[in-house]
Amino acid sequence: MENMNLNKHISGQFNAELDDIRNRVLAMGGLVERQLEQALDALGNLDAELAQKVIDGDHSVNGMEVSIDEECTRIIAKRQPAASDLRLIIAISKTIADLERIGDACVKIANAALDKRLKNQQPLLVSIEHMGRHATRTLHSTLDALARMDADVAIELHKEDAKLDSEYEGIIRQLMTYMMEDPRSIPEVLDVLWAARAVERVGDRCQNICEYIIYYVKGKDVRHTTYEEMKQI
Amino acid sequence: MENMNLNKHISGQFNAELDDIRNRVLAMGGLVERQLEQALDALGNLDAELAQKVIDGDHSVNGMEVSIDEECTRIIAKRQPAASDLRLIIAISKTIADLERIGDACVKIANAALDKRLKNQQPLLVSIEHMGRHATRTLHSTLDALARMDADVAIELHKEDAKLDSEYEGIIRQLMTYMMEDPRSIPEVLDVLWAARAVERVGDRCQNICEYIIYYVKGKDVRHTTYEEMKQI
Repeated sequence: MENMNLNKHISGQFNAELDDIRNRVLAMGGLVERQLEQALDALGNLDAELAQKVIDGDHSVNGMEVSIDEECTRIIAKRQPAASDLRLIIAISKTIADLERIGDACVKIANAALDKRLKNQQPLLVSIEHMGRHATRTLHSTLDALARMDADVAIELHKEDAKLDSEYEGIIRQLMTYMMEDPRSIPEVLDVLWAARAVERVGDRCQNICEYIIYYVKGKDVRHTTYEEMKQI
Repeated sequence: MENMNLNKHISGQFNAELDDIRNRVLAMGGLVERQLEQALDALGNLDAELAQKVIDGDHSVNGMEVSIDEECTRIIAKRQPAASDLRLIIAISKTIADLERIGDACVKIANAALDKRLKNQQPLLVSIEHMGRHATRTLHSTLDALARMDADVAIELHKEDAKLDSEYEGIIRQLMTYMMEDPRSIPEVLDVLWAARAVERVGDRCQNICEYIIYYVKGKDVRHTTYEEMKQI
């Protein structure tokens, strides 16, 4: 985190605190990444035990969000940070909210994995697998960019979400034809549809996190701006 | 906002700044409330012109989020607030993120209103109307609680979301039977389903805002806690 200008702080304790929340948000990211991988594995193999593990694990994700957020507020009140230190804390506080929501998406995916009717719908699960892998890669790269606070990578990753969106559109169309061909399968196809939507939302959350990275590094709020506008910053 | 202890501030300018962001978040809430009402009207009457107005109006909602957030950061850096002032700013900064997402939900509802195929599906639209009114009332009461920073009302409202959730579950079941009876209608029924989901999400967002109100007033983060735990605070 070379951009952090840590050495400018007189207080070594303050440095340690910033390091600590930075490490904790990365640990939370690691946990959420594992949750996503396991949720997708559970859905791909209809592994109810693994799905339940993911659902139970969401509790830890929520707990991390609350405790990191508390620490962010404590640091603001105690250290009265300004400039890039304040931006770091704000970026972290927003990032954990999106990580928590990716955790919720994992629970939705895991819930679909509990639907036993999907045993007869293997082709549906294959269709979502590719998108799932794509989303996992996106999350992994986003967390890498966060660890290095790399705004250039964040800008490129931000653009990636459009691809995930079109993959999702394709899957929705595919699921629609399944339903039209075999209306009795509608309840279980809808379960896959919710899971697909949850996977797509992971991409949106990663896009948000990329925006916070850019905000921290460049000092500019790029929400609701285009790729071209971002490149110019 | 009697809990704000405004008179304790030596700086009258600081008071004015806190008043200003408080007014701005309420104005943003008013705009989002109008967007929701119009989006639901547009869907109920399949009024494409009104739907387009809602879609275009989302730009203003986004702009308000960015500018209020900027002001929050500026106040933290300049005034170094602590205790309830800091909590107020944090609560506002989180609230606007949820208001912005309610704005996105309005766009999704408005998009469904653009689907001309729904002309032949009037009963579907009626089913969503009741839930829509319920969500509008919830948002209105949430914004009232926010204006008065009333934690007791916020706790009661928080519980309300479960009702909206069961209404939503009922609509999903109903939409499923429509699709199974007339598979050709699946594409347009899915549009209603996305709109129903967006309405349901409005309730979740209101629940979040209620949590921020409680956080501000009681100084306690109540995310991921139960109604009983909240009442004890």
